[in-house]
Amino acid sequence: MTEHHPDGRAERRPDDRPRLSRRRLLGTAGAAGAAGLALGAAGGALGTAAATERPTALATVGRSRVPFHGTHQPGIATPLQAHGHLIAFDLVADAGRKEAAALLRRWSRAAEALMAGEAPPSRLHDTGIALDAGPSSLTVTFGFGRSFFDRTGLAARRPAALAPLPPFSSDALDPKRSDGDLWIQIGADDALVAFHALRALQREAAGTARVRWQMNGFNRSPGATPAPRTARNLMGQIDGTNNPRETDEDFERRVFVPADGDPAWMAGGSYAVVRRIRMLLDDWERIPLAEQERVIGRRKSDGAPLSGGSETTPVDLEKRTAGGDLAVAADAHVRVSAPETNGGAAMLRRSFSYHDGFRDDGSPDAGLLFIAWQADPLRGFVPVQRKLDRGDALSRFIRHEASALFAVPGGAGEGEYVGQRLLEG
Amino acid sequence: MTEHHPDGRAERRPDDRPRLSRRRLLGTAGAAGAAGLALGAAGGALGTAAATERPTALATVGRSRVPFHGTHQPGIATPLQAHGHLIAFDLVADAGRKEAAALLRRWSRAAEALMAGEAPPSRLHDTGIALDAGPSSLTVTFGFGRSFFDRTGLAARRPAALAPLPPFSSDALDPKRSDGDLWIQIGADDALVAFHALRALQREAAGTARVRWQMNGFNRSPGATPAPRTARNLMGQIDGTNNPRETDEDFERRVFVPADGDPAWMAGGSYAVVRRIRMLLDDWERIPLAEQERVIGRRKSDGAPLSGGSETTPVDLEKRTAGGDLAVAADAHVRVSAPETNGGAAMLRRSFSYHDGFRDDGSPDAGLLFIAWQADPLRGFVPVQRKLDRGDALSRFIRHEASALFAVPGGAGEGEYVGQRLLEG
Repeated sequence: MTEHHPDGRAERRPDDRPRLSRRRLLGTAGAAGAAGLALGAAGGALGTAAATERPTALATVGRSRVPFHGTHQPGIATPLQAHGHLIAFDLVADAGRKEAAALLRRWSRAAEALMAGEAPPSRLHDTGIALDAGPSSLTVTFGFGRSFFDRTGLAARRPAALAPLPPFSSDALDPKRSDGDLWIQIGADDALVAFHALRALQREAAGTARVRWQMNGFNRSPGATPAPRTARNLMGQIDGTNNPRETDEDFERRVFVPADGDPAWMAGGSYAVVRRIRMLLDDWERIPLAEQERVIGRRKSDGAPLSGGSETTPVDLEKRTAGGDLAVAADAHVRVSAPETNGGAAMLRRSFSYHDGFRDDGSPDAGLLFIAWQADPLRGFVPVQRKLDRGDALSRFIRHEASALFAVPGGAGEGEYVGQRLLEG
Repeated sequence: MTEHHPDGRAERRPDDRPRLSRRRLLGTAGAAGAAGLALGAAGGALGTAAATERPTALATVGRSRVPFHGTHQPGIATPLQAHGHLIAFDLVADAGRKEAAALLRRWSRAAEALMAGEAPPSRLHDTGIALDAGPSSLTVTFGFGRSFFDRTGLAARRPAALAPLPPFSSDALDPKRSDGDLWIQIGADDALVAFHALRALQREAAGTARVRWQMNGFNRSPGATPAPRTARNLMGQIDGTNNPRETDEDFERRVFVPADGDPAWMAGGSYAVVRRIRMLLDDWERIPLAEQERVIGRRKSDGAPLSGGSETTPVDLEKRTAGGDLAVAADAHVRVSAPETNGGAAMLRRSFSYHDGFRDDGSPDAGLLFIAWQADPLRGFVPVQRKLDRGDALSRFIRHEASALFAVPGGAGEGEYVGQRLLEG
């Protein structure tokens, strides 16, 4: 029940996939209807229970398409993709507000085409790297760093929420890989589609902005696990169980700036905290499983809290073992980071793992490109990280090596470009 | 029509997938029957023509399993996976033949378990990174470098084919990222499964061998393209059209050392030439499409030779344009590398793309982890590279930055470990 276009792509029709939950298939179609996935599923009878729960294994991965236009930018509530690129730019010396506006217009036009599986309508010829692939769930998300507003004469319109993050004792930050005037997050379920978008967007910036830093990440492939599961990180731990869900009543309020928010140009936007967190895997893998589980507060095999139940059972922070000890240790990561112990703060963590080979000392240069989305970083990331900084058992196995905070405006409407309300408002 | 094991994996049964070509589904099951893929496909009617041609889009990616035992090692004739890790080790100072044999035994045992989707039977606890994922087409391939034979007192058994590769004028080789006593190639369709295997095998080496170099690569995701296509590289070019195919009469003879080959312990083995080839993408993307196509000798859109036809049409090296020029230029890559111009030399290229971010000069550190498999490198890679070195129009857009040559013994039989015929023979 899919319509095939001459170029081989397919678009979803409403009579599609009768046996599959519409919510699951749409994935990102939240209350705001901002982002939906158009999956071209292979129809017909489905052979296994696992298959009926995992549309990505049935649909051709390349056909999944996320819309560019909407209340929110794509790549925030969109399900995690298998490949991610983060890239930050600084404006060149003679570029100001006008040049930045032209760049955001070019970038938006390119992102819209790329997310549809088309070549960007550029003055430059296309590289062809993504030829024959479909959109592959590509998302492109744009953000502004604190320094952007000074360089473009827009300091008066800078959100208060873009105040610099406070220093944390566990930080070992590399300024060359931190911050930046402009930021792009690229996600896709195909590596060549993601790389194609990265190059295309970088080329559009030529003459206006130069690369400040760039990082590559990954997650599990669609269809690699027999049923939908919360992601695992490179410590082997299920990571993201307590994320706010789109079905939560307060999801929108926690993740996105409200329509009447301040400043007005950030309506429907969000703030992204980006941290490159290296995992000290040699140290981590040396401790026994039981100690790893004590550090986290969850069972490794299935992510169930040590207070009992299954992965999604709420953590019982008061629960005692038969011997009278706390079932979830006082310094367990899950306790220290729990919303209950942080005044209800919650952020949407949407991270990629990274692995950049081995360092000169023989240890792996690997960990998490931690990305947290929230309506207000001072109520999301900052209070949680302050608590983690003081008493998280996980601290001795990780290093925060880079940090950035970006204001990510709302999604572009038809005919609009991302950031237009800031740059032309 | 799949059998489900308690752990959620499935094994292929012969009555499976009546409408799909058995050859395509088995993928690697060559004349020697060395390697076959056990795909757990979702049965039933298939919705689209593309789907019937692309089993990977139907099966749960995680369930695909490649057998460890066989005449040849896996990862040579196996279809390209989406993720690859290459890692080279040097034996530590006090490790000799005995310690190397024990390591290869541990590695083989671990590889067999990992390729079945199980935790390696190690004295070390498992990291759990691949928990809930299936085998995901994981392959682990082991090789010996020239220096291995000196360090283990086995110089008399070193194959003549392991003679150092000659220098080429386009080389800019980094010795720290070249060569090595031992080499492992890991491939999988899931990034976490691949990383899990890398860490597990590295841990097994502790005390016996230390990492010399390590590189990460990728290819298109299964299901990202609507139909099976030859891979594209990061120049956007279809790459691998002229590869020998398993259906070719002389495939075995070109790629694998024969059963009565010399030395005897290499029977069923192959030689891997590994080159890290950086692409000068800023230069490449600056030239127009027509010039890119002239450099390669093929059309970018579909890979058809400039002498006409479609991707698989043999290149007509004599063809002239209406104006009398050669349709495929004298220095076109496809002409200079054509088997016809190299005494019939042919190698099986099975490469991964790589992208390690940006260099300090702002150019991408990206290109090809070129891996060529052949029964004899002096008849495969060397004569072709000699010709390319003299007259390939592509040369000015690439840099060979690392190089290695490994003897990859035949596959292990049941109860045997890889390399046993060398180390205990």
